[in-house]
Amino acid sequence: MQTGGGIARLPAPLRLESGGVLHGVEVAYQTYGTLNPDRSNAILVCHALTGDQYVSGIHPVSGKPGWWAKMVGPGLPLDTDRWFVIGSNVIGGCMGSTGPASDDPATGKPYGLSFPVITIADMVCAQAMMLETMGIERLFAVVGGSMGGMQVLQWAHAFPERISAAVCLASAGRHTAQNIAFHEVGRQAIMADPDWRGGAYQAAGVRPEKGLAVARMAAHITYLSEPALQRKFGRELQRDGLSWGFDADFQVESYLRHQGAAFVDRFDANAYLYITRATDYFDLAAAYGGQMAKAFERARDVRFCVISFTTDWLYPTSESRRVVRALNAAGARTSFVEVDSDKGHDAFLLDEPVMTAALTGFLASAAEAAQL
Amino acid sequence: MQTGGGIARLPAPLRLESGGVLHGVEVAYQTYGTLNPDRSNAILVCHALTGDQYVSGIHPVSGKPGWWAKMVGPGLPLDTDRWFVIGSNVIGGCMGSTGPASDDPATGKPYGLSFPVITIADMVCAQAMMLETMGIERLFAVVGGSMGGMQVLQWAHAFPERISAAVCLASAGRHTAQNIAFHEVGRQAIMADPDWRGGAYQAAGVRPEKGLAVARMAAHITYLSEPALQRKFGRELQRDGLSWGFDADFQVESYLRHQGAAFVDRFDANAYLYITRATDYFDLAAAYGGQMAKAFERARDVRFCVISFTTDWLYPTSESRRVVRALNAAGARTSFVEVDSDKGHDAFLLDEPVMTAALTGFLASAAEAAQL
Repeated sequence: MQTGGGIARLPAPLRLESGGVLHGVEVAYQTYGTLNPDRSNAILVCHALTGDQYVSGIHPVSGKPGWWAKMVGPGLPLDTDRWFVIGSNVIGGCMGSTGPASDDPATGKPYGLSFPVITIADMVCAQAMMLETMGIERLFAVVGGSMGGMQVLQWAHAFPERISAAVCLASAGRHTAQNIAFHEVGRQAIMADPDWRGGAYQAAGVRPEKGLAVARMAAHITYLSEPALQRKFGRELQRDGLSWGFDADFQVESYLRHQGAAFVDRFDANAYLYITRATDYFDLAAAYGGQMAKAFERARDVRFCVISFTTDWLYPTSESRRVVRALNAAGARTSFVEVDSDKGHDAFLLDEPVMTAALTGFLASAAEAAQL
Repeated sequence: MQTGGGIARLPAPLRLESGGVLHGVEVAYQTYGTLNPDRSNAILVCHALTGDQYVSGIHPVSGKPGWWAKMVGPGLPLDTDRWFVIGSNVIGGCMGSTGPASDDPATGKPYGLSFPVITIADMVCAQAMMLETMGIERLFAVVGGSMGGMQVLQWAHAFPERISAAVCLASAGRHTAQNIAFHEVGRQAIMADPDWRGGAYQAAGVRPEKGLAVARMAAHITYLSEPALQRKFGRELQRDGLSWGFDADFQVESYLRHQGAAFVDRFDANAYLYITRATDYFDLAAAYGGQMAKAFERARDVRFCVISFTTDWLYPTSESRRVVRALNAAGARTSFVEVDSDKGHDAFLLDEPVMTAALTGFLASAAEAAQL
């Protein structure tokens, strides 16, 4: 599989939903496969909250396979022998795209909290501009799970004429109160850490590692189902017998601590604040008096595939159904699959044969319809 | 309603499940109603994680009604015209009973982390010894929700001959991996706060308020159902429009922050560590190779009422059913009611007519059976 990547510098300032403007925006991307001569075989894969552009291959930092390596590659559902798959780091992120840890060109110092609040719409605008720099005017498909699915819906809302197909996995058209609440716990954990320094920790040469680890631990529980946690860990102990103290007695405690510690090695605390905020703010229906269908009015020629998972309690099937009802009401051709899985929200990242089959079938028929 | 209260000093050292011994243990209690001449009309009400002995009346610190004032009083389900209702603060707590904030009699200084890890069984032993100091050899009933329900099950296991009836609401016979995981997030949030000082914050004249607030915020989400949060807050904003920053934009954020702030005013961080640990360690079936029924073998003459709530995802109905199956297998007479409520775990603290009716009916028939 041919791979490539780099940093795209956007040719114009990015006008933000907040009314602000970001200058000199850079978007880090990776590509897998080969762009065909008429530039018609591109698929953009949008990543989740803490994902990045390393969709397939080996991640340069962790040394592990990219987050969707099971799905993107030769002969896989996103077949790189046929498609040119692009992953890009969202703006606000910390894997090479402009975010709060970047230097503000106006001051030469890290933005920190002077970075403007960005939205899912801003992320998608930056992606569209990045694609223009690559000479790609139209995508065959845009695909993503979780926050990536929000970007997919936003693509269908803002740039329906630039996509033939859209795949939204384990996602929602807006955050519920519970979604916002869990994110707020994470933000408060970060901001409670004295090493956060009001967001200016880079200048101080410190990092709010403990707060960020607690944020990750709380969030991680929401990514897994209760049955999966129980099956995997139950009440199994780390050692023979209890410690009668506050060490990690139970395997699930040790696992969570590890998740927290590993996360701070690869993620920036301010980026976590900004990206969680973007997902909390996302609400496709808000501008239409709560009628999400109106957000998809121009998207009726896009073919949609919406996939949810039975034990996903972060973005439950009921939220996917809301999206599907809106798409149906807008007259868009929509496939909807609820995959029976006990793996919770993270199922979209894992080996789920029904998801794989649904995605493969959908892309084949969408490609045929698009005469590709 | 006649009320009373005080501090019971246990007449003997408390031998702990860990093998340790606590000397000079004090248990703070409140009473509601009048003990009859033959001392046969006592009901012990066991509190949840962050509850206390102020079951009814007005709480002296918060100035608000006691946590079960809707249920305990003249003419209420726990009718104080008939019953002598006792609430006591668990050991390990921070409302007057011996806990990690108490002075260690051996050193004259606060225990902090030198306080021994205590268990639900230790809490119940202390309650039984407290009742002996009051001349109460037998309870008509022991009643409790959440962690209070664990104490009820432990009473039935350890002292079945001292109780006629047992009411276990919104509880479980053991913590699942998810329960432990959420508690571990809270503990890590506290221990991440530099003002925790390895548990020795009292000597330093500080308190890990930020960490404790984050712990409470995370836990509070688990006490409410997703539908209740959505109905109560949805995506409603605090002000007109978004702040485009990290202030509390959404009402649910403001609500959570308030829950965190109010909690640190009334609760001790080390007590939170110890009490969450006690609930994580609780596992009635562990000593019997996983067969919970064997833990209730001596309790077949106790009448049980087990109540769960449809949207309680902290201690879901499936966990109550496990308890009920064990009680049935042990041959104990058991009523089980799953109350249809959208209020989540906290439903047991709220006005739930079906719960009230079930409890009233159960106590009446249990009193008749006990010839009271």
